[in-house]
Amino acid sequence: MKIPVVQEILGANDQVAAENRAAFDAAGVFVLNVMASPGAGKTSVILATVDRLPAGVRPGVIEGDLASSIDAETIGARGIPVVQINTGGNCHLDAPMIRTALPHLPLAELNLLWIENVGNLVCPSNFALGSDINVVVASVPEGHDKPYKYPSMFASADVVLLNKADLVKVFEFDLDYFRRGLAMVNAEAPLFNISCRTGSGMGEWLAWLLERIR
Amino acid sequence: MKIPVVQEILGANDQVAAENRAAFDAAGVFVLNVMASPGAGKTSVILATVDRLPAGVRPGVIEGDLASSIDAETIGARGIPVVQINTGGNCHLDAPMIRTALPHLPLAELNLLWIENVGNLVCPSNFALGSDINVVVASVPEGHDKPYKYPSMFASADVVLLNKADLVKVFEFDLDYFRRGLAMVNAEAPLFNISCRTGSGMGEWLAWLLERIR
Repeated sequence: MKIPVVQEILGANDQVAAENRAAFDAAGVFVLNVMASPGAGKTSVILATVDRLPAGVRPGVIEGDLASSIDAETIGARGIPVVQINTGGNCHLDAPMIRTALPHLPLAELNLLWIENVGNLVCPSNFALGSDINVVVASVPEGHDKPYKYPSMFASADVVLLNKADLVKVFEFDLDYFRRGLAMVNAEAPLFNISCRTGSGMGEWLAWLLERIR
Repeated sequence: MKIPVVQEILGANDQVAAENRAAFDAAGVFVLNVMASPGAGKTSVILATVDRLPAGVRPGVIEGDLASSIDAETIGARGIPVVQINTGGNCHLDAPMIRTALPHLPLAELNLLWIENVGNLVCPSNFALGSDINVVVASVPEGHDKPYKYPSMFASADVVLLNKADLVKVFEFDLDYFRRGLAMVNAEAPLFNISCRTGSGMGEWLAWLLERIR
């Protein structure tokens, strides 16, 4: 007798993520899943990068939040197509939420889609969305020990942006300790020290990104 | 016919939380559940408060982390009884984890127990631990919009500490906007602006705390 095994929840999510991915590929859209602690600067990274995009790169944004549409309004005010997902208390975005959002975006007109996940350095990395890369944003005020304390999130990163890097001295942030911690859990992901406020480091990060989306 | 209803997961957790609470009451220990984003300064708040406790208040600490024992080592180095809980990837502490930790603490010798939850501004507030009060630590670098974006966490607070308040000007932090957001979701919890680094505001917070534990 064969015993039927019900597919686990992550399996179901992964299936929808693959469907999202197929839709993105068909539309020729490169997709970034941006994950970070609350207040690390996810929205600022998106805006600072979008402001520096060359002509021909047409961005859109999906905003994930427990509640409110504060960030979506900021982004929409720049004339960027944006959809707000309110998770209603859920601690992460999942693939079905992204699928629900897609019809509300002019996908055929875009070639770069940012998904801003819920501010949470734990849960979001467990749920594939169908993105091309995971962008993990850390920030200097959080402290240099974060890769040691939240290894699964940093292990999931395809690239790590250390934001608010202009404040390294104010917070006595040990860049080398941070870098060693990241290397321990993720030997592949490049690290860019950036400041959305001053613009420092944005050129290197943008060059890395543009290489991938072309 | 009566249909048996299996108790929901939160019901099971609440039952163990009640048992923890009974153990705390029997030992005469006042218990704080400290919740915050990664890097807001939970450990710093615990240490800065403990350093200012009057004679006769005997603190202990339970440290919750996904991985590592960095904070527990910092606390243990001060001679404070401390137990590390590594959640193994779990995004929050729960009541059974606390129950497991208790035999490793000299509970009869303590009268103030800090539980430092996993750095996460979403999930921990859904799981009662048996504590007397929830302490939510926000920090200025995270931005003034956090009560609007993470309402369930701020709603769960018995007291809110806004840490790194010495940096209000550096981050152009709008104290009034933050205060209004907090009041929208939680009309009861007092707010103390503190800086663990400079010590500002620590006296008011400590006075509030000592009133409760006596």
